[in-house]
Amino acid sequence: MNIGRPLEFDPEQALDAAMQVFWASGYEATSLQNLLDAMDLSKSSFYQAFGGKRPLFERCLRRYRENMAAAMLESLNQAASGRHFIKDMLSSVASEACSGEKPRGCLVMNTANEFAQGDPTVAEWVAQGVDRFTAVFKAAVQRAQKEGTIAADKDPDVLARFLVSSMSGLKTMVKAGIGGEEIKRIIQIALRAID
Amino acid sequence: MNIGRPLEFDPEQALDAAMQVFWASGYEATSLQNLLDAMDLSKSSFYQAFGGKRPLFERCLRRYRENMAAAMLESLNQAASGRHFIKDMLSSVASEACSGEKPRGCLVMNTANEFAQGDPTVAEWVAQGVDRFTAVFKAAVQRAQKEGTIAADKDPDVLARFLVSSMSGLKTMVKAGIGGEEIKRIIQIALRAID
Repeated sequence: MNIGRPLEFDPEQALDAAMQVFWASGYEATSLQNLLDAMDLSKSSFYQAFGGKRPLFERCLRRYRENMAAAMLESLNQAASGRHFIKDMLSSVASEACSGEKPRGCLVMNTANEFAQGDPTVAEWVAQGVDRFTAVFKAAVQRAQKEGTIAADKDPDVLARFLVSSMSGLKTMVKAGIGGEEIKRIIQIALRAID
Repeated sequence: MNIGRPLEFDPEQALDAAMQVFWASGYEATSLQNLLDAMDLSKSSFYQAFGGKRPLFERCLRRYRENMAAAMLESLNQAASGRHFIKDMLSSVASEACSGEKPRGCLVMNTANEFAQGDPTVAEWVAQGVDRFTAVFKAAVQRAQKEGTIAADKDPDVLARFLVSSMSGLKTMVKAGIGGEEIKRIIQIALRAID
């Protein structure tokens, strides 16, 4: 009997590889073969371990959301101030514009754009992602309010949503070909809104 | 001889139908059959008149850009003030969130999101669309500056780009499921940036 035979691949590494493909190409445009190639798996191992493209996509989206929210929180904890964190987050979009690589945007927002509200389950995954990112921005706004760089009477929930919306708009502008210097100037304007 | 035999369909109407399909579903997810159904054409008429999915997409994108820019300009000409136009444009996104229909976003920005910079020709079409929309917002900003509701020392090019970026972010938020009332509150914040 073959109980507990170890997997012949590292599932975390395979998930990461799949996440990169979905992030760069979107759900629809990613073929099974793209996934097998990136994950270095046979079709049978793929189905056995991940069940199919759709359940794999859910796991990738969840992984992206958790990794990204954790990285954002870590960055907020390390930041000199709440305001610095907010500026750094927005500025990271300008860096993507300057990288010379094909801009990938944010997997959660890419998924929002691809599916819109056409698939209730995907819409729920997207909403969870947006809420996670909003929560980190809200913590940053509240920190900035304590530090006196954002007025205490402003609603941190609305400012946080504004910042997520701004990030998303900026990332689309980068995908539309707007260069890094111009993105920086747009960010300067956006930051005025939270003054 | 069969010179000048009239087409058995209205090419403008067929183009409009195709534009709606690309707008709602994106390029990749639109099949030839989707287009034939929407345009009510046989495969041979389709290829004879439009040459294929890709050249048809270019014509749809150009049509969308021109229709949209013309509608925006008309709306700016009719608006009580430059500032009113800007507010109305942003607020139209909240209306989409409240419509109860699947949000479609903007075909130009959807295309930016779908292709990013991965296809130079498509990237050029997208850039032309973004520039057209930016030009209308710039005219609105300059009008508002003359009317005294936006400070005269602000750079209208940057404010216009900020407004296009904001529209795009808001449209993605609607696709992510953010409701109309919340969209309106985000717009209030965004408008502060151009004060």
